[in-house]
Amino acid sequence: MSETSKTAPSTESTERGQDGDHSARGGEYTRDTNYIATRVTADGRDGFPVEPGRYRLIAARACPWANRAVIVRRLLGLEDAISLGLAGPTHDSRSWTFDLDPGGRDPVLGIERLREAYFRRDPNYSRGITVPALVDTATGAVATNDFAQLTIDLSEQWSDHQREGAPDLLPAEHRDEIDAINQRVFTEVNNGVYRCGFAGGQAAHEEAYERLWTALDWLEERLSDRRYLVGDSITEADVRLFPTLVRFDAVYHGHFKCNRNKLTELPALWAYARDLFQTPGFGDTVDFQQIKEHYYLVHRDINPTGIVPVGPDLSGWVAPHGREALGGRPFGHGTPPGPVNENERVEPAHTPLP
Amino acid sequence: MSETSKTAPSTESTERGQDGDHSARGGEYTRDTNYIATRVTADGRDGFPVEPGRYRLIAARACPWANRAVIVRRLLGLEDAISLGLAGPTHDSRSWTFDLDPGGRDPVLGIERLREAYFRRDPNYSRGITVPALVDTATGAVATNDFAQLTIDLSEQWSDHQREGAPDLLPAEHRDEIDAINQRVFTEVNNGVYRCGFAGGQAAHEEAYERLWTALDWLEERLSDRRYLVGDSITEADVRLFPTLVRFDAVYHGHFKCNRNKLTELPALWAYARDLFQTPGFGDTVDFQQIKEHYYLVHRDINPTGIVPVGPDLSGWVAPHGREALGGRPFGHGTPPGPVNENERVEPAHTPLP
Repeated sequence: MSETSKTAPSTESTERGQDGDHSARGGEYTRDTNYIATRVTADGRDGFPVEPGRYRLIAARACPWANRAVIVRRLLGLEDAISLGLAGPTHDSRSWTFDLDPGGRDPVLGIERLREAYFRRDPNYSRGITVPALVDTATGAVATNDFAQLTIDLSEQWSDHQREGAPDLLPAEHRDEIDAINQRVFTEVNNGVYRCGFAGGQAAHEEAYERLWTALDWLEERLSDRRYLVGDSITEADVRLFPTLVRFDAVYHGHFKCNRNKLTELPALWAYARDLFQTPGFGDTVDFQQIKEHYYLVHRDINPTGIVPVGPDLSGWVAPHGREALGGRPFGHGTPPGPVNENERVEPAHTPLP
Repeated sequence: MSETSKTAPSTESTERGQDGDHSARGGEYTRDTNYIATRVTADGRDGFPVEPGRYRLIAARACPWANRAVIVRRLLGLEDAISLGLAGPTHDSRSWTFDLDPGGRDPVLGIERLREAYFRRDPNYSRGITVPALVDTATGAVATNDFAQLTIDLSEQWSDHQREGAPDLLPAEHRDEIDAINQRVFTEVNNGVYRCGFAGGQAAHEEAYERLWTALDWLEERLSDRRYLVGDSITEADVRLFPTLVRFDAVYHGHFKCNRNKLTELPALWAYARDLFQTPGFGDTVDFQQIKEHYYLVHRDINPTGIVPVGPDLSGWVAPHGREALGGRPFGHGTPPGPVNENERVEPAHTPLP
């Protein structure tokens, strides 16, 4: 199979994929949006057919883009079909490592560094070593790292292997609205916090801050009288917003200077985020300690001491949210996912969940 | 007059006075507590007799230690007796400058840098060039920079020159309690935030954070059913706590990583701080923009980009606080101070006050 990539219009980048630790020099931060664009599909058109047990999802608890994929895998009950490998929260210039695993190697792929799986795909691979990556265990090579397409494919291409009661995260009748919201949330919120944190100067930071808060005010308003972003049930749009919200007070507020307010000061968004956090499949994927360690230890250019804050107080995440009063059915015609696999549980000291 | 100094027990310091920009190397941050200990007194025992028009208080809006002196001068109505000079918010390794003044010189002292007044006192002066400093305009030399003694002396030594209706900030019947609270607030809160921000390592930071929050929890409890820290009226104890609280969300929460909660999340302390902020003599001395610029631009070792956050939202500072319900008389048998002198007003864009 050939190395192909999808190239977004704006690629003058100073961050390599999602694992970057570089602030923009003198201007606006721009994300590299080149990804390995082959897909794992039911028809196997790119050489990677859907096949239970064949692929391994490599994620990191710290990473918001990987968090999406871990949530969707849980919601759809794909744990038995696609195994999960977790890189540690910190890394050096050679990117993500399996330092949390016994012997420092992923137990299935047998590699110490995620980049080995990228080099198996292409010995000359020169772009970002990013998570999430779906790795073909038959060859040990990355099949795709296109995080935006990945969660859609988990919904649409893996339907034969999803659990009974799996929710429809991309209902056809709401698809246009979901796509529109996803686009705005991506550019203004998911990526907006990075634009604040990695701005190359005061003017770029201030412009990024205004863009971010314009979008958060829009979301606060939108969520004040509706339980979920689109329709009456959880969709892909909620999955994509949640990883940024759950990291907001822990890292983006202080470390990225997104500090007009804490999430806890935005009544609708804070209650919405808690509602999702307390829903099986969301909060049970979140490791606050790994999140903090990643940002504060990896980005030495904006946090040279490497000191990781002790706060914030996380107890509010498990407080009642009152969002049931807005109605809605979290899983539509489906059901909640079951308990987390024993070997995939977040360290109890790293989460406020009971 | 001889150069004398009062030496505190612990003087192994990595910060020179209050203007420091150095984090401790590998351990706990320790403040230099050596100050020029001569005093301006009614009896002139140190060669500096109280005399209206003779002394100039050099402060900086940014500095919490100087903020105390500016507040007490306002509350006691000493504006006509002691003039006010204001250094700009940022400075280089040669410390505070008069860059806000026309021509970059203090209009009364005629100097560009505060250190010139220190060198006039002692050509070999080698400790911190700190604000507040009370400068003798007869010689241009610093009379004292002992910030803790300074505000007490404004109350006790300058009584003949205070305004009619000046409050008693050090009532004899509460003096022991005020002293005890001041001691704990100084070591655990005023200085505690610096201990968090300038910790030389993770363990020192975590220890500092625990100390700080233990004290803030004590204050939250204490202020939940009493309007002021001691007795029924504003005292020196409130004056000393306020400058740290008013800077908390703007700088200490993010920049110094004191981030268990924002002040806005502590109901009693937040309402107490707003109550003081809205009391003449407190909020009208606060310049949030200068505060942020000082910390974020001077401390490049913990904020190498020098980017100053746009937040936090300050609108809450002027919202109703409801503390009148707790009773008390803000000024005891005295009255509030009058309006701020025209030439001492905080830039309207730098404050939420109307």
